[in-house]
Amino acid sequence: PAKSTETSGGKVVVAQEPAARFMAPPLTEDLEHKIAAALRDAAGDPDKLANVDMKLRMEDMVMRAQLAICRAMEDADGQATFKVDRWLRKEGGGGVSCVLTDGAVFEKAGVNVSVVHGILPAAAVREMRSRGKDLPADTSMPFFATGISCVMHPHNPMAPTVHFNYRYFEVTDPRTQQRQGWFGGGCDLTPSYLFEEDAKHFHATYKQVCDKHDPAFYPHFKKWCDDYFNITHRGERRGVGGIFFDDLDDRPRDKLFAFASDCAFAFEEAYLPIIMRRRNLPFTEEQKRWQQLRRGRYVEFNLVHDRGTKFGLATPGARIESILMSLPLTARWEYCHEPAPGSVEEELLAVLRSPKNWV
Amino acid sequence: PAKSTETSGGKVVVAQEPAARFMAPPLTEDLEHKIAAALRDAAGDPDKLANVDMKLRMEDMVMRAQLAICRAMEDADGQATFKVDRWLRKEGGGGVSCVLTDGAVFEKAGVNVSVVHGILPAAAVREMRSRGKDLPADTSMPFFATGISCVMHPHNPMAPTVHFNYRYFEVTDPRTQQRQGWFGGGCDLTPSYLFEEDAKHFHATYKQVCDKHDPAFYPHFKKWCDDYFNITHRGERRGVGGIFFDDLDDRPRDKLFAFASDCAFAFEEAYLPIIMRRRNLPFTEEQKRWQQLRRGRYVEFNLVHDRGTKFGLATPGARIESILMSLPLTARWEYCHEPAPGSVEEELLAVLRSPKNWV
Repeated sequence: PAKSTETSGGKVVVAQEPAARFMAPPLTEDLEHKIAAALRDAAGDPDKLANVDMKLRMEDMVMRAQLAICRAMEDADGQATFKVDRWLRKEGGGGVSCVLTDGAVFEKAGVNVSVVHGILPAAAVREMRSRGKDLPADTSMPFFATGISCVMHPHNPMAPTVHFNYRYFEVTDPRTQQRQGWFGGGCDLTPSYLFEEDAKHFHATYKQVCDKHDPAFYPHFKKWCDDYFNITHRGERRGVGGIFFDDLDDRPRDKLFAFASDCAFAFEEAYLPIIMRRRNLPFTEEQKRWQQLRRGRYVEFNLVHDRGTKFGLATPGARIESILMSLPLTARWEYCHEPAPGSVEEELLAVLRSPKNWV
Repeated sequence: PAKSTETSGGKVVVAQEPAARFMAPPLTEDLEHKIAAALRDAAGDPDKLANVDMKLRMEDMVMRAQLAICRAMEDADGQATFKVDRWLRKEGGGGVSCVLTDGAVFEKAGVNVSVVHGILPAAAVREMRSRGKDLPADTSMPFFATGISCVMHPHNPMAPTVHFNYRYFEVTDPRTQQRQGWFGGGCDLTPSYLFEEDAKHFHATYKQVCDKHDPAFYPHFKKWCDDYFNITHRGERRGVGGIFFDDLDDRPRDKLFAFASDCAFAFEEAYLPIIMRRRNLPFTEEQKRWQQLRRGRYVEFNLVHDRGTKFGLATPGARIESILMSLPLTARWEYCHEPAPGSVEEELLAVLRSPKNWV
């Protein structure tokens, strides 16, 4: 929260960091003043308010969420703190990566913000068209993307891994200068040992957030999550799910922004009670080994199936360490491992093979 | 080598396995008799000899190589033996997977033979056309594939991981019944600590095999190997290379078969001296951790880039455990890990970033 900035006559002047609101200074200079001015200007005019530059508002939101989540997880850990890397991308933009390693509770936890822009190659535009986006054929397009992503891997096999990410993506038609933007994101819980109470609490929290915005959201996004976090080659979901959505642009942008923002700030409520009641449970060497095998599955999903990871690894100038920060510290693969019939490990697999409704 | 096949009046009759030449019975019934008959029939006629069914000869070759390699590696390990799984694929064919886990020398070692056939979807045919194959457009095709693949991960960080695979692929044009076949394969060495002597020996062994068949092979296939085993998102090769080739069909099939066969049987000569001199070297906890980080890179290559793994994971009815048997028992990912300047770990990275000529 404080940083030494200047020396004056041999004395280190410690300046109070202007951004106690952030883990590091935002990518956009004077971000807060720019937003405040735009909001002041739009005050009382719903139409104008809906059109305050979403790029700025999203950057502000994810930077604030990053701080809140890092601080909450440091409290939960009680020992380690996040290492903060602010990085720039020569193709445009940059990010702030916060990673905690080898804490008392967390083996590895990362919260990454990125605010990048550049030119989307024609192949990537084609891929978006194939998902139903109304975009021009056979052309590259300027794009802008802001997002926050987070993965926490606890030591204790009784404590689940958790992930979320929320992003805003915008492209500009090079011929008409028309802009299109959409929101995507989601969160999911990945236990090695299933506590129904945890799955229910996690889902109930996000259902409440969804219901506040649209009662159709939760059932739709819950199923989308089960369909997305699917390790197809194993016939297993990676965990007990949560919510997932993408390409959202069916209502005013400020409404979608409010939804993404509420989701992001619901994380503490969703995960903190779970990590607190599981972090110190006793466990055996065998249970630790099962966790490591499940971490192997996590690696398989992220490297083979996850669209964000694949997009990232194929993007020139991407910061690989920020993309792969989602991988666990350690993982394990045993040939033909099968849990014992009737074991709790087998019960978990049954749920991963055939997802349940939790609320 | 011996197997209990029948019970007769409560007594287990142990029959001497007919296939002491193989780890398990071949997929093709009476394989050896069929080949012997065909070779007898073709004796003295080079043209006929070149056309003895390659599917049978390849199956026989990879089954014999599997036995030889498993026995040699069991000797090198001195403790563990290979677990043998013979499996069938409901879409056609099957395989024999041999896996050794937690030996004295090897953490995990697998030698897999597969002999499969079925219908190649139009999308896969298109992918082969895009690689230059003269195949009909927009149609599925019957295919046949026989191959052997092998990965050995030793415990000792001074002992390198090794991989090879050799395969014969054949498609039949559904309209003309014309068949086209080609060979592919290669081998590569992945040390965590670089011993130049090992890299030189490995390359020299395969150069000798290559030179026997065509002096143009080694330089071509050495470069192809460096280009193929490239973790592009890291800017690192996965190891010190070896040879790699694919789509080979530019000379009589029996010549290419002889080359693939010589490569397969050169493995012992290439790897055994290396594992014998490294398996018991002393090492520290830190060196073990570096090995685990390099194993993480191995996982990244196999899951993100390897064409065979991707093809396998996307193939309906594929035996996932045989495909992913190439993954190490354990792996590790540390955020932003960098070896100390001037360290031997950094020297290895320099070679992975800029491949050398070893012979």
